[in-house]
Amino acid sequence: MPQSVDLLVLHAHLLTMQGEGVGYVRDGALAVRGDTLVDVGPSEALSPRYQAAETLDATGCAVLPGLVDAHMHTVYAVVRGVAQDVANWMQKGLAPFSRHMNDEAARAGTRLNIVEAMQAGTTTMGDFVRPYPGWAECFAEAGLRACLTPTINALPPGGMAGWKLGDLYPLDEDAGRASIDAAIGICDRWHGAEGGRITTMLGPQGTDMIGREQLLEVGRLAEERDLMLHVHVAQGDREIDQMLKRYGQRTPAFMAENGLLNDRLLAVHLTEASDEETDLIAASGARMALCSGSIGIIDGIVPPAQRFREKGGIVALGSDQASGNNCSNIFNEMKLTALFNKIHYRNPEVMPAWEVLRMGTIEGARAIGLGDRIGSLEAGKQADFIVVDVDTPNLLPIIDAPVRTLVPNLVYAATGKEVQTVVVAGRTIMRNREVLTLSESEVRAQAQGEALRLGERVARDPVHRELHLLCAMQTGKL
Amino acid sequence: MPQSVDLLVLHAHLLTMQGEGVGYVRDGALAVRGDTLVDVGPSEALSPRYQAAETLDATGCAVLPGLVDAHMHTVYAVVRGVAQDVANWMQKGLAPFSRHMNDEAARAGTRLNIVEAMQAGTTTMGDFVRPYPGWAECFAEAGLRACLTPTINALPPGGMAGWKLGDLYPLDEDAGRASIDAAIGICDRWHGAEGGRITTMLGPQGTDMIGREQLLEVGRLAEERDLMLHVHVAQGDREIDQMLKRYGQRTPAFMAENGLLNDRLLAVHLTEASDEETDLIAASGARMALCSGSIGIIDGIVPPAQRFREKGGIVALGSDQASGNNCSNIFNEMKLTALFNKIHYRNPEVMPAWEVLRMGTIEGARAIGLGDRIGSLEAGKQADFIVVDVDTPNLLPIIDAPVRTLVPNLVYAATGKEVQTVVVAGRTIMRNREVLTLSESEVRAQAQGEALRLGERVARDPVHRELHLLCAMQTGKL
Repeated sequence: MPQSVDLLVLHAHLLTMQGEGVGYVRDGALAVRGDTLVDVGPSEALSPRYQAAETLDATGCAVLPGLVDAHMHTVYAVVRGVAQDVANWMQKGLAPFSRHMNDEAARAGTRLNIVEAMQAGTTTMGDFVRPYPGWAECFAEAGLRACLTPTINALPPGGMAGWKLGDLYPLDEDAGRASIDAAIGICDRWHGAEGGRITTMLGPQGTDMIGREQLLEVGRLAEERDLMLHVHVAQGDREIDQMLKRYGQRTPAFMAENGLLNDRLLAVHLTEASDEETDLIAASGARMALCSGSIGIIDGIVPPAQRFREKGGIVALGSDQASGNNCSNIFNEMKLTALFNKIHYRNPEVMPAWEVLRMGTIEGARAIGLGDRIGSLEAGKQADFIVVDVDTPNLLPIIDAPVRTLVPNLVYAATGKEVQTVVVAGRTIMRNREVLTLSESEVRAQAQGEALRLGERVARDPVHRELHLLCAMQTGKL
Repeated sequence: MPQSVDLLVLHAHLLTMQGEGVGYVRDGALAVRGDTLVDVGPSEALSPRYQAAETLDATGCAVLPGLVDAHMHTVYAVVRGVAQDVANWMQKGLAPFSRHMNDEAARAGTRLNIVEAMQAGTTTMGDFVRPYPGWAECFAEAGLRACLTPTINALPPGGMAGWKLGDLYPLDEDAGRASIDAAIGICDRWHGAEGGRITTMLGPQGTDMIGREQLLEVGRLAEERDLMLHVHVAQGDREIDQMLKRYGQRTPAFMAENGLLNDRLLAVHLTEASDEETDLIAASGARMALCSGSIGIIDGIVPPAQRFREKGGIVALGSDQASGNNCSNIFNEMKLTALFNKIHYRNPEVMPAWEVLRMGTIEGARAIGLGDRIGSLEAGKQADFIVVDVDTPNLLPIIDAPVRTLVPNLVYAATGKEVQTVVVAGRTIMRNREVLTLSESEVRAQAQGEALRLGERVARDPVHRELHLLCAMQTGKL
């Protein structure tokens, strides 16, 4: 007698990501009960086994695990597009805006980024943000899976006014204390909340932005609570300069000596990591978050993810910040990751499509400590998956003899807008591109309104004259 | 008294591409009569001036010139996805399929590529194809602007069986004659047809693939007819090897000596061009077609477009072939061009958004000899433009104070699927994403059917064992 389930998905081009590849199942099916996948396999096997409250016919669609975006700063979606094509993106692009950011603008940014990412098939968002009231609630409401990292640093609350390039950062222990306390408050409140859909990490922004004692304290707090540490590591020459001046060590050596390099660490960027440092971090069991689009645009650099993986390391993808990357779309990150590495190594065989698809799904899940719950479609795991229309002019044709083109086409030709339906923990949060948990039009209007008001505040502050794009505008280029 | 026009577009974020930048007009308008733009400017100026048969309210949209894809091989859309992640894409990816291509598959590919490109905002397609019956008619029917180049070469009609890597190509004068005659037939029939919407070029596939006498004959025929020459130049080490063995010269020197380097030439790829050769070609007045996505994927190389432009050369963008690039989308090419060059030069200021937008519009139009007719929005030019919804989560917010983010967001965040409406020569050929000139569902079904049949033919031919992707499939990776 058929067992009852809540949802049965039938007739998909199924990419389970089981095994060491993409785990393709022709005419595949999923059975979902509550928040859990109870069965995964061929439609002809599952169809007679289950009586479903809802059936989704996925003919002409690929079904795959929801995508994992391991490193984002969602608030900056509200200033999308202010920090490209500039050598010093932070100072000449983002900073004039970030100093005028308020809680309303931050929240509008997070909500805009949630809708953008969901509509591009992201189901897990690893958000790294200076917390504001209602931050975590945005994810609770949207129904996405979130891994929240409240920013910890000891930078002075009034900003870095008076600080000169080359000077040591004026670290402020009280500011550090306040941000640690705030982060702990959020982690204690939200880790494991919403049926486990929300998890947290502790996030020292960088080893250069907090004193050693407080950094080590954060490390101990993470161990006590069994939380991961989410840290920008070797992210720029400014960081390396600070570390050398303060400790006489570059970041990776400093972290190794202080017991911070291990499998509890999610190390972001590694932009400036040498080969030896990359090897050291990979060997430690630490995981890497690779933000190809962002680092490519703002630095013109391809981070050492290929080497990190060759040394046995686990790599997640991240979209970083929309002010510089301009989009939060893991389809975009998969494609750019494959292409940038082919170019970096001048070798078209580096990072084939199936490898980057694993980085966007199962490998990303493992990197953020959720590999046993999400990232692949198998019985017992959470029902986080996306339904992607592949019967569309830019993804056709679909052949699997003599070779299967589905995965190269998803990675190299999909835009993210082919995602039709998004399911997280068994709940459909987007159907036929309609977001069901939020009002998209309200989110859009709110983001546009807050951005205009933020722009006005920046325009009134003489600091706006530092904006690099201003020059292109004034000469009629932009 | 208001003059009557056929179409008035109002309230757009208008990018005219006039001048040296993007020619932004806030709350801009276009007036169209017949196939021509009769007025371009602020809505408040144009609105009282004209009585329009049709008015398009473009509030929340960007309106810009239709995008120019200067170099494509449309037939290969029918084998999208067979030739990536492989060191020898031609032999280990495309060749087993191309030897089994027939006219029906070729036509299905062209039509699929037309719909794909149109839906991504391309209005001018520079197609380079071995002609088959009905090829040009596809473009006539679709209503796009096309610049058609029938392939000319002297490769033996039965294929290269028996040829060994390193040997000279077995050039066949009769084959060369037949392809020259066929090309001339098409150019004489179609150049200037459809009210000038279709133009043609003469296209020796490469200087290595036809004998010198016949190549020079093609050059003379182009001069007599005032047609451009569309040639793959320095496109690979195999070409250079052939040229050195046959003539003792690399391609650029050979072309210079034979009078083929001048402003009649559209030189494609320049993958293997040295700095000196790049300078030589740019100085000659020849134009360059840059296929960033394709060459990035199949070769892992960034062609020398930045240097070509620094030397005063004009560069168009092209999507090349879907079997390797996997998509024909100039939004994609603009983004990849900017990013690849930032990475190549490790400099985020190289190729800013506004420059690549010019390459995808006015500079592309100039490169293919149509700069006086299309590529910018100004009175007297053809009415080729696209309406792009920017009130969408991945492109919001839109601010223009203190800096304007529209162009960075279009280049770095748009996917092409935000294009709503496409107008070519005053005729609306896509409205609200519905293609009006072709049946999209028929095109999709035809492409899928032909691809399956082509796949069966390839699977029956033992040559399919050479396919690189087969190995990934057999080991469960793909």
